This record gives sequence, C-alpha cells and structure tokens, in this order.
Amino acid sequence: MKLLRLGDKGRERPAVLDRSGRLLDLSFLTPDIDGNFLASGGLERALGAVEAGALPELDARNLRIGAPVARPGKVVCVGLNYRDHATETGAAIPERPVVFMKDPGTVVGPYDVVLIPRHSARTDWEVELAVVIGKRARYLENAAQALACIGGYAISNDVSEREFQLDFSPQWDLGKSCETFNPLGPWLVTPDEVADPQALGLNLSVNGLVRQHGTTKNMIFPVAYLIHYLSQYMVLEPGDVINTGTPAGVALGLPGRPYLRPGDTVELSIDGLGSQRQAFAAA
Amino acid sequence: MKLLRLGDKGRERPAVLDRSGRLLDLSFLTPDIDGNFLASGGLERALGAVEAGALPELDARNLRIGAPVARPGKVVCVGLNYRDHATETGAAIPERPVVFMKDPGTVVGPYDVVLIPRHSARTDWEVELAVVIGKRARYLENAAQALACIGGYAISNDVSEREFQLDFSPQWDLGKSCETFNPLGPWLVTPDEVADPQALGLNLSVNGLVRQHGTTKNMIFPVAYLIHYLSQYMVLEPGDVINTGTPAGVALGLPGRPYLRPGDTVELSIDGLGSQRQAFAAA
Repeated sequence: MKLLRLGDKGRERPAVLDRSGRLLDLSFLTPDIDGNFLASGGLERALGAVEAGALPELDARNLRIGAPVARPGKVVCVGLNYRDHATETGAAIPERPVVFMKDPGTVVGPYDVVLIPRHSARTDWEVELAVVIGKRARYLENAAQALACIGGYAISNDVSEREFQLDFSPQWDLGKSCETFNPLGPWLVTPDEVADPQALGLNLSVNGLVRQHGTTKNMIFPVAYLIHYLSQYMVLEPGDVINTGTPAGVALGLPGRPYLRPGDTVELSIDGLGSQRQAFAAA
Repeated sequence: MKLLRLGDKGRERPAVLDRSGRLLDLSFLTPDIDGNFLASGGLERALGAVEAGALPELDARNLRIGAPVARPGKVVCVGLNYRDHATETGAAIPERPVVFMKDPGTVVGPYDVVLIPRHSARTDWEVELAVVIGKRARYLENAAQALACIGGYAISNDVSEREFQLDFSPQWDLGKSCETFNPLGPWLVTPDEVADPQALGLNLSVNGLVRQHGTTKNMIFPVAYLIHYLSQYMVLEPGDVINTGTPAGVALGLPGRPYLRPGDTVELSIDGLGSQRQAFAAA
C-alpha cells in the first residue's frame, strides 16, 4: 500500500494510491497520516478499507503532494552509513552508527521548492532511504522486532549545508536543520511492498546529470540493525523518521565540489518508492 | 505570569499561577499550552483573562506537574556555553555556539522520575536556563528582535549519558536523547517577570550535596545572541525549546566522576523560575 498526503502545506488530506494507480480518499478514515494514525492501527484499517472498496476515488488534479507523514516527532539521521560515502568524505568507516538529528520542521513535500540558506556557499544533496516508524520501539531485543516496528519507507533528501555542518562546530545538526531541508515522499510505502530494504537502488541527479547511483546493499548498518540499535538509546515513536544514510556522490566528495545554486533542479528516486524533484531557490 | 500544566502525563490541563499564589484554570481559554497557543497570542489572552479575574480557581491537590509546554517541535541545545563548564570538560572555549538537538520526546515534568538507561554507567546532570519560543524566529536582524521572540523561561535538566554522548560517535545527540532525559518546568515564566535573563543564579544538588552553583552572567553567548544566531540557520517555531547550556559542576568534570545511580535525587533551581526534584531509577 502507498499512502500520501495531498493539498496545500499544513492542509493536506490523506490518500491511498492503490495497485491499479487510482487515488483513493482516506479522509473518511482519518484526518491525517501521523503518529496517532500509525499508533492506532491506521495502516491496517486503511488496508481493510481499500480491500473492501470502501474508499471513494479522489480527484487530485492540481493538488500538491505533501510529505507522506505529518509532524514527525523527530528526524533521526545516520551519518556515513555507506562505505563509499564515508570514503569520499575522508571519514573512517564508523564502528557504530553515527547518530544526529534534523529539526523535524524541515520536512516538506517531495516537489516543494528547497531554500538555499542566506550566506550559504555549500548546500549539498543526499538521497536516502527513510524509514517511518509504525510501532513504538524501546529496548528491542532483535532484528525481527525491529522490522516489525516499521510503518513504511519513503525517499528522503537529507539536504545539508557543509560549512554550517562541518566548520561552525563539531556538531552537525546546524547544517542539517535549515528551512525546507528534508523533502520526504512522495509515498509512505508499507513494508509488504518492499521485499528487501537492503536491495534498493538509489539515484540522484542534478540538472539531469547523475550524481548518486547506489544501492542499500552497501549500507554498513542495515535498517533492522539501526532500529534495534537506536531503540537501546532512545524511544522511537510512531511517525518518527529515520534517514538511513547516503551513498557516494555528494558535492562534498566530487571534484570541484559542485554545490547547489539557485535555479538548480535535483531529482531523486529509489526502487519502488517513486521519485522526487526539487527546484532550489535563494532563501 | 507563570503558566503550568497539571495532571497525568499526556492529559495535563493548562493553568496559571497568579501573583498571589493562586492556581487558576486556563482550560476555559485553551485546551493546552503548546505551539498553537503561543503562536495565536495565547499569552496575551491569558494575561487579559487573569487581569479581568475571568479564570476560576483550580483545585490542584494531588495533581502532577507536567512540563509547562506540550509537544515542543524541537529541543535545540547549546553546548559548552559557560566558560567554567567548557574548562572542566577539557574543551576549548567555542568561537561559535555548539548546537545539537535532543529528541523532543524526552521532555517530562519537573518532578517526574528520570530513567537511567540500561547499560549506562555515566548518566550526568546539567541545570540549564531553557527558553521557550513564543513567536516564529527566522533570519532575525538583531538582539531586540530575538528577545521579542521569547515566550518564556523555564528550568531544564539536560540529562546526558556521557558514554553514549562522547564515546559512541563524535555526534552528541545519542547520549542526550534517552527516555525522560529532559525534565522541564515547573513553570513557563513570561519575560516580564525575568528582569535580566543574564543575571540568574542556577543551582543543582545531588542527594543534598550542591554540585552546580552558577550564574547566567557567565554564558559565553547570551540568550538574545543565541536566538539571533540560531535564526540564521533554522526556523524557530512557537513551542520550541532552547537549552542554553550548563555551568560547571557536572559529574564529568568532578573528581571521581560521581555519575548518577538508581535511588539518587537531583534538585534544581533557577532564580525566579522555581525548582525541580527528580528521583533517578533504572530503566
């Protein structure tokens, strides 16, 4: 099942994209796709309603696509989680996941304009597999429990300002938390449609030029490991988002460091999770 | 004006503590004290209602005190912001604010039990002046604008697990985001009652032994500077919390490193902002 949110920012309505490509209105079942919806068995109710043919079709012409989950309680990020990306940035292969956070207010829709911050010279891209938590995760015991806590997957662009992130202090969050810095979506794809989260191709291009072309096979710490690990140190709640790291090919690691400029267009895709496209503009 | 939230966790009702020490029920005016309340002029409406004598008295016997703001969108922390604390931890005096984040789900009431994480040997305390944002802050131009964005002040215990924070990766958020790690309150004290946020004594004791006894005079980057600075890199929204750093006296900096153990009691106070007391227990 693919869930999405359609409409103006802050006024999105929930919807389902069914297997035949029809958009169905989910607002008869829930006011929104958020932590409460996920925590209360919303995915199961939505699936039941789809299978019963109980949801009316939705006319989505001209509707913006929002992020597929509203108001995440937190956005946890894992740094340097692909060997090739750790190498390109000059970092050692980490022995444990490198965990930091983004302001959850940075989450925007997959086709929204992304703002390059004022005084930024080093705004960068990062295509990532995002995991949306569906069930509370606290001191999980094994990988099977971790997988059972996944509500779904989505594409995430973990946009980063490298000077703010790396030069202004040893802590990265500042350069990860700028306004609009986390396009998410277009869909929340439930785990039944993702046969193996460790066998997904990820792609990102800038102005039509392929920059990232990786696979989740190359994660140092796979998805189930990350959820299990994080749950030993923090409580993951339904609606929380985990950005699981980016493969090689970011501007920071490329010859000439071709950082983003106003007018640039970034396109992202992950196998089975759809695609994104953002125009970058000055803040 | 002092605002607070009373009742069981997740079911708190909003209240005001007036100048004569009476508790007034604010639930006639708003369902909660949160970002929406602050963004919509709630503080002004509450003050008007108090002055008009329009709020009924509240019988608060046996009611738990919750955090004074519900569901912060983010908790931004400033590290090493007191010279004496930077020195005791062996860190250089930072040239720019060191910015990191805590899971906002860690926010609990000022008298709630704090859980020492499983496998933790280095759980530590940090008394801090917390600023709660009252108005959206984005690319502010000066300190006066920054001060105008403050909704109020509160005591914060920025509880930290030093092994998770410092040894598990170079990024600190993991050791700052454990369950219950951010007692906040008891009150949200509006700026009119805080003559000078840079002249407040802060105190913390463990099992009756004074461990921290500092003053906000010794902040490297004062409150107005921090809000102005942060607003250049992220959008601060009403209800967001900023933990502005801790003075010297944390376990990490003390001889013998007397980290917290189950059964310990920590008490905190800041001039004009009341006091907290937490029992620490095993998770």
